[in-house]
Amino acid sequence: MQFHEDGYVTGDPIIKRPAGIGLNRTAELPVELDVLIVGEGPAGMITAAQLSQFPGINARLVERRPEELLVGQADGIQARSVETFQAFGFANRVIDEGYHITEMSFWKPGTTNPSEIVRAAVAKDDELNVSEFPHLIVNQARIMQYFGEVMRQSPTRMVPDYGIEYLSHQIDESEEYPVAVTLRRVAGPQSGEELVVRTKYLVGADGARSQIRRDIGATRQGKQAAHAWGVVDSLAVTDFPDWRVKCAIQSNDGGSILHIPREGGQLTRMYVDLGEVAEDDNHAVRETPMSQIIARANQILHPYTVDVKHIAWSSVYEVGHRVTDRFDDVPAQERAVRQPRAFILGDACHTHSAKAGQGMNVSMQDGFNLGWKLAHVLLGVAPTELLRTYTDERQEIAQNLIDFDKTWSSMMAAKPEDFDSPTELEDFYVRTAEFPAGFMTEYKTSLVCGTQDHQDLATGYTVGKRFRSAQVVRRAEGNPVQLGHLAQADGRWRIYVFADAPAAGQPSKTTDLGEWLANDPASPLVGADLGGRRRREWFDAKVIYQQNHLDFELLDAPAAFRPVYGAFDLMQYENVFSADPETDIYAERGISRDGAVVVVRPDQYVAQVLPLDAHSELAAFFEVVMPH
Amino acid sequence: MQFHEDGYVTGDPIIKRPAGIGLNRTAELPVELDVLIVGEGPAGMITAAQLSQFPGINARLVERRPEELLVGQADGIQARSVETFQAFGFANRVIDEGYHITEMSFWKPGTTNPSEIVRAAVAKDDELNVSEFPHLIVNQARIMQYFGEVMRQSPTRMVPDYGIEYLSHQIDESEEYPVAVTLRRVAGPQSGEELVVRTKYLVGADGARSQIRRDIGATRQGKQAAHAWGVVDSLAVTDFPDWRVKCAIQSNDGGSILHIPREGGQLTRMYVDLGEVAEDDNHAVRETPMSQIIARANQILHPYTVDVKHIAWSSVYEVGHRVTDRFDDVPAQERAVRQPRAFILGDACHTHSAKAGQGMNVSMQDGFNLGWKLAHVLLGVAPTELLRTYTDERQEIAQNLIDFDKTWSSMMAAKPEDFDSPTELEDFYVRTAEFPAGFMTEYKTSLVCGTQDHQDLATGYTVGKRFRSAQVVRRAEGNPVQLGHLAQADGRWRIYVFADAPAAGQPSKTTDLGEWLANDPASPLVGADLGGRRRREWFDAKVIYQQNHLDFELLDAPAAFRPVYGAFDLMQYENVFSADPETDIYAERGISRDGAVVVVRPDQYVAQVLPLDAHSELAAFFEVVMPH
Ligand SMILES: Cc1cc2nc3c(=O)[nH]c(=O)nc-3n(C[C@H](O)[C@H](O)[C@H](O)COP(=O)(O)OP(=O)(O)OC[C@H]3O[C@@H](n4cnc5c(N)ncnc54)[C@H](O)[C@@H]3O)c2cc1C
Ligand SMILES: Cc1cc2nc3c(=O)[nH]c(=O)nc-3n(C[C@H](O)[C@H](O)[C@H](O)COP(=O)(O)OP(=O)(O)OC[C@H]3O[C@@H](n4cnc5c(N)ncnc54)[C@H](O)[C@@H]3O)c2cc1C
Repeated sequence: MQFHEDGYVTGDPIIKRPAGIGLNRTAELPVELDVLIVGEGPAGMITAAQLSQFPGINARLVERRPEELLVGQADGIQARSVETFQAFGFANRVIDEGYHITEMSFWKPGTTNPSEIVRAAVAKDDELNVSEFPHLIVNQARIMQYFGEVMRQSPTRMVPDYGIEYLSHQIDESEEYPVAVTLRRVAGPQSGEELVVRTKYLVGADGARSQIRRDIGATRQGKQAAHAWGVVDSLAVTDFPDWRVKCAIQSNDGGSILHIPREGGQLTRMYVDLGEVAEDDNHAVRETPMSQIIARANQILHPYTVDVKHIAWSSVYEVGHRVTDRFDDVPAQERAVRQPRAFILGDACHTHSAKAGQGMNVSMQDGFNLGWKLAHVLLGVAPTELLRTYTDERQEIAQNLIDFDKTWSSMMAAKPEDFDSPTELEDFYVRTAEFPAGFMTEYKTSLVCGTQDHQDLATGYTVGKRFRSAQVVRRAEGNPVQLGHLAQADGRWRIYVFADAPAAGQPSKTTDLGEWLANDPASPLVGADLGGRRRREWFDAKVIYQQNHLDFELLDAPAAFRPVYGAFDLMQYENVFSADPETDIYAERGISRDGAVVVVRPDQYVAQVLPLDAHSELAAFFEVVMPH
Repeated sequence: MQFHEDGYVTGDPIIKRPAGIGLNRTAELPVELDVLIVGEGPAGMITAAQLSQFPGINARLVERRPEELLVGQADGIQARSVETFQAFGFANRVIDEGYHITEMSFWKPGTTNPSEIVRAAVAKDDELNVSEFPHLIVNQARIMQYFGEVMRQSPTRMVPDYGIEYLSHQIDESEEYPVAVTLRRVAGPQSGEELVVRTKYLVGADGARSQIRRDIGATRQGKQAAHAWGVVDSLAVTDFPDWRVKCAIQSNDGGSILHIPREGGQLTRMYVDLGEVAEDDNHAVRETPMSQIIARANQILHPYTVDVKHIAWSSVYEVGHRVTDRFDDVPAQERAVRQPRAFILGDACHTHSAKAGQGMNVSMQDGFNLGWKLAHVLLGVAPTELLRTYTDERQEIAQNLIDFDKTWSSMMAAKPEDFDSPTELEDFYVRTAEFPAGFMTEYKTSLVCGTQDHQDLATGYTVGKRFRSAQVVRRAEGNPVQLGHLAQADGRWRIYVFADAPAAGQPSKTTDLGEWLANDPASPLVGADLGGRRRREWFDAKVIYQQNHLDFELLDAPAAFRPVYGAFDLMQYENVFSADPETDIYAERGISRDGAVVVVRPDQYVAQVLPLDAHSELAAFFEVVMPH
């Protein structure tokens, strides 16, 4: 964390100084906006939290509910989400608070007495060690509260506007604020009143029954038939030995429970399978009484019993596997001629079962993908074409998710005798762990994602996949730090320069690259101010040397990695690193000893891997996304 | 962290539900109090934070200043303090926020050109690996803000009362509230007004010039002559290569600087030695202009220069090595006949140089030692004799500190030619690291500290020293956890039962002990309610088995380690552990394979090491501090 660079500020350094919009934030919704977000779910909140970091962007979030979500809905937090929280500054607090999944138990009918379940296997949750972050369970309401805190503590002091419902919108490209949105107050003294606000962009994070999806004419693909689960968050007394372990439980009569311990040491969630919902059910399944669901759970758990003492939250959750044909307002045939103005995110564009615990995770990655793109376009940093890449990138991810979820759900629903091998279910769980953990996302080549031509220079940093952290030593004070954890959700591009063999201060390709980055007119870091920042402040350029940190001097690193900043023109000390001799990032991430440049997007995805002397390729890449 | 056990509570689970005093906290100072603390420094704040955890205790803290401390004073946080913060729930946030000291550089006059300093050595700060917690630098003001947050979020919703000055007190043991304290408002509309409050106990955390010290007739031992340093917290531009490293810098002309990088990546502190203060100086040294101190720093740093751009805080800090003859109001000759009513803590009873970075650390340990003792006596859990142990335990620690500090300060002040060996200074630093880290404290045998008769059963848990954490696996869900980090500052005794060889459920001494603890009338856990809690809730009894966690069942552990608690009579799941096969706490802490009981005090000090079958010794120990 960096702070006090403009003088000591008392209090929590996480709270940023108000700036721009935040100096004079109006309680009332302004009539003209840069971005209007509809829906206070995980998708809407992360988008808002990201946009709130830019003092120059006037973004608001409206939500129909009269107040914040207090309890319920999803609770699975994949490691990729925790990695994302790190960028927003609250990962460690969620880690302290959450339940950590490290194991999963599989319970099946016993072989001697199939009417009683037995513990058939215990699998490690992250056998493949895909991340340094844990897999957590924390209530969705809490995650949204954390994002709410990020917003309030951001320079723009953003807070959601509750009790306001989206009704419809119209787009007129001839206007400065092309999207006219009709809203209605649904809480408070003026309840019922309609109002119109004009915005540059509309973000539809309005959930599975999205009105914005309908209004932009997107249609849902996939089968209509939904699957239903009785979801019970409860406090209970039980003799079931694995009450604090995540369990897949299958009984002899075809029943199944997905059992998930929750944060705090007592609360747990049971997903009791209620089966496929008939086409003509008309949501009748939602009327299933909780007592019936708990009785069913007891049947499945036999010979164990669960005495539910208190229900904290419950729901009959009914959902189909569906994805919309596009995630913005531009139909395929118009994509060449106009850029999007409205977007849909999260459940508004993809729904799937809760079994793989993806609910809020994928929705947040939608918002993380869109947020910085909107900021760059609004601030004039990037061309409007950037916005198209949102649908291009996220729709494929959604489709993969639905496919994975279908396989996983049907495996969990299958009877033991349907499997080829007795360990098929747990083997699949372990083998595919990278997918539900959120790390299989691999974006295709586009204007924000390069090719894999030079992938051999850094085999651990696949172009299109997220930048995986590793430990390095910071030269300035010799501290071991996680390189990836230094990246904040600040909308900046990151340029990681992994040095070739010579040390800092020696003639080398790294020294040449540093010189070029700092001084060449073609360098992306050189040029006039852009979007309210010095141009070079849109970049976070770091260098990692192969030598031990005491074998070279900080001040010998090229000036590009020690830029001057802040009110007092101080030198940045914290961008020069050394490979930690104990962990060696070069070995861990397959980086060539001849060095490599790894370019990482503001949403943490690797955009380029290049040789150290590929100055012109580097220039060409940024000339598209950040033209001079 | 455990929460939601009485139903889901939305929001940050760190915020406890209001209870007792906190349900109806008055803005105005009540006329009758259980404890009155004077002084919002580290000593006063930790005492207040500890007492605020007990709904039944009415404690207030008065401070002369009109508002909280905003900046300045001490900044070194030893690992023992971070361990203490863990118990108060904010260690990880301070760790994220602070500067981490991992190395120290030693700069000396060059051998070829002694007028220029050169880097002579770099030493690891914690070569001996004395703690899993780091050594940090964070402003004292921030630490007090963290404790302030703990107080506000406690059941009693405590906040300091600012703008109130202590004047004097009188003790009359015949009264229910024996201490009558005269205060004066020194801020706000009623400024100047005097008021009298009556309290059961008075805590003098009123700093080096303590009035309470004088009022209880304690006297300071040690030499009068003080040493002075110019302390400058600044933002600067420099070519000194180790600006972000803790440095001891000695120049040829006898000058010396202790240089300390600060939190946030830019701020640093220089202690520029101004030498011994003459007896007749009359604080004239405090008038030394900052420009002169900075000029002196530049002289010492030659050939490097420091261009100070901004001074965040500065002070001429003048201090002698002194400790008072006692830390409470009872003179030696009266100790047999009466118990203390007034205490002094922190700088009020010991002062020393800033060189070893002990300022706020030792003061906090004073408060942590006193806080739970006051609570136990006030709630009728322990006899009043307990309070005497405060002076007994802490005065010796203060004396050790002064002795250590004298040695270290004179070594740092010595000229290079005074040393026997060129590496004497850095060798001493590394060799004695456990002392300034706060881990050399070893309390003597008393009613709260047993003997070392059975020390061989757990050689890593020295009776009288702090309980050092180690990694174990929690049986309930298979998570690796730091055993020591589960201990909160909740005033409870901890009983760690390290099992003998048989697994849970087998006949063993552990099984017998569990049975005895839960059911025997002599067991400290058995008996009538005490101080507003079930008697067994004054204990946190945990068991650690030698088997891997999947080789026994949670439900086979004795019921003493799975107590029923909370509004719904739920079972506690989180007190049964297994030695982590990778780290093996038995090997790491020298625990006998025949098992051992380790009793730990509410302030984390080991009070007893006993064999598993020493039921009567265990009963006897607690019969004194928690009589039936
Ligand atoms: C009742 C319920 C139970 C669920 N249970 C589970 C579960 O057990 N496990 C699991 O993994 N997932 C569950 N989910 C799904 C999970 O919560 C979603 O995947 C996740 O919240 C998606 O996030 P989102 O931001 O896309 O949408 P949502 O979280 O659904 O947020 C959409 C928001 O938009 C608001 N909104 C909608 N229309 C308008 C409008 N016209 N104007 C203003 N505001 C509007 C809604 O009030 C809502 O707050 C559940 C969802 C719901 C609704
Ligand atoms: C100006 C200054 C600079 C310092 N600089 C350093 C440094 O550079 N490095 C270092 O290691 N240590 C430094 N210290 C020492 C360090 O801050 C202390 O060791 C530490 O704060 C001790 O904590 P404490 O709680 O005992 O007392 P303090 O932190 O001194 O707190 C005592 C409090 O009591 C209040 N008080 C005093 N009398 C009354 C009264 N009659 N009524 C009401 N309130 C009263 C005071 O206003 C003060 O807030 C400095 C101290 C001071 C005062």
